[in-house]
Amino acid sequence: MTKGLFITLEGPEGAGKTTIIDMLLNYYQEQEKKIIKTREPGGIPISEKIRSIILDPKHTEMDARTEALLYAAARRQHLVEKVIPALQSGAIILCDRFIDSSLAYQGFARGIDMEEIWQINQFAIGDVMPELTIYFDLDPRVGLARINNTSGREINRLDLEKIEFHELVQQGYYRVIEKFPERIVKVDASKSLEQVFHDTIDIINRFLK
Amino acid sequence: MTKGLFITLEGPEGAGKTTIIDMLLNYYQEQEKKIIKTREPGGIPISEKIRSIILDPKHTEMDARTEALLYAAARRQHLVEKVIPALQSGAIILCDRFIDSSLAYQGFARGIDMEEIWQINQFAIGDVMPELTIYFDLDPRVGLARINNTSGREINRLDLEKIEFHELVQQGYYRVIEKFPERIVKVDASKSLEQVFHDTIDIINRFLK
Repeated sequence: MTKGLFITLEGPEGAGKTTIIDMLLNYYQEQEKKIIKTREPGGIPISEKIRSIILDPKHTEMDARTEALLYAAARRQHLVEKVIPALQSGAIILCDRFIDSSLAYQGFARGIDMEEIWQINQFAIGDVMPELTIYFDLDPRVGLARINNTSGREINRLDLEKIEFHELVQQGYYRVIEKFPERIVKVDASKSLEQVFHDTIDIINRFLK
Repeated sequence: MTKGLFITLEGPEGAGKTTIIDMLLNYYQEQEKKIIKTREPGGIPISEKIRSIILDPKHTEMDARTEALLYAAARRQHLVEKVIPALQSGAIILCDRFIDSSLAYQGFARGIDMEEIWQINQFAIGDVMPELTIYFDLDPRVGLARINNTSGREINRLDLEKIEFHELVQQGYYRVIEKFPERIVKVDASKSLEQVFHDTIDIINRFLK
């Protein structure tokens, strides 16, 4: 069915995903490749509305299972409206976060069985899995320090979690990588932005060959 | 864990659920029973926000699986914040719609395998199932005609569905009743409001004994 290439980017806050995605977009557009970027949760109107419920810092009463179901709902709508049509048109799609975020954050870090998180996400995405996932590996303390030094960035509900939560997220990601060693490639995100960009390009180009 | 009694009311639009619930509330309050009413999707702030996304008539692009996940998310939060605390306090809770609506509407009528709908709802509710469910049985054409004659009622996205959809919902409900014959009791909602109220009281009182 799909002719394009579905690439997801994963990792903690402050790992530089957003910046690297913009650099990748420029790089491949200069090579005249058909490429689009998008992000989760969000990317289209219904999913952006769901995003605003999930990330509202006032929603301190939100249950972990509610959160997991909302992420899956936003994922489904984004997939149907944006990812699948882009893949069918033959584009490379760079997606900031996807199912692995739910496994690490809503599953491992929130203490819900990762198998249960997998099942509700299977309901949402069916067989549309990324061909390649790049994991930006970074000590969560370093990532959070970077964010706190970035002026103008809005603080959302997940940013308010304690460092222990972000450490669990990292452990969760490591479990996910163990499960999908073929699909997920790790990049050392503690290096300079130029080096991280260079390493990422290498991985994608190897994959495109 | 629970000491209260969890009763859900199901059926098509226009079957009189909302009116009957108000009559039941008055009736049992006069008997000095601890009783509360609530509704799905909604009932608490986060779920009301999810409700507004689900029912917005402008969201014509909403995918059936997104819709099912949003209902499950609203259900979870409502259960945690409202239903479980009420049950723990020993109250009778009358809930307008619950899991059976998802099985009939999002499952059977939208063409998603009811077993899949059951699984995402199991994720949402765990083992908190209603002890008693009253199904207001009514030809969907009669129900829709009643709604259209009610001035001031807001039209939502599901009201815009064709009659064929509402007929599938009814067939879906019949399947659900076959699966849970112990829990679900049918009331003939084509009778007068007084008669339907009387029949409903009979069922609940038999259950309370």
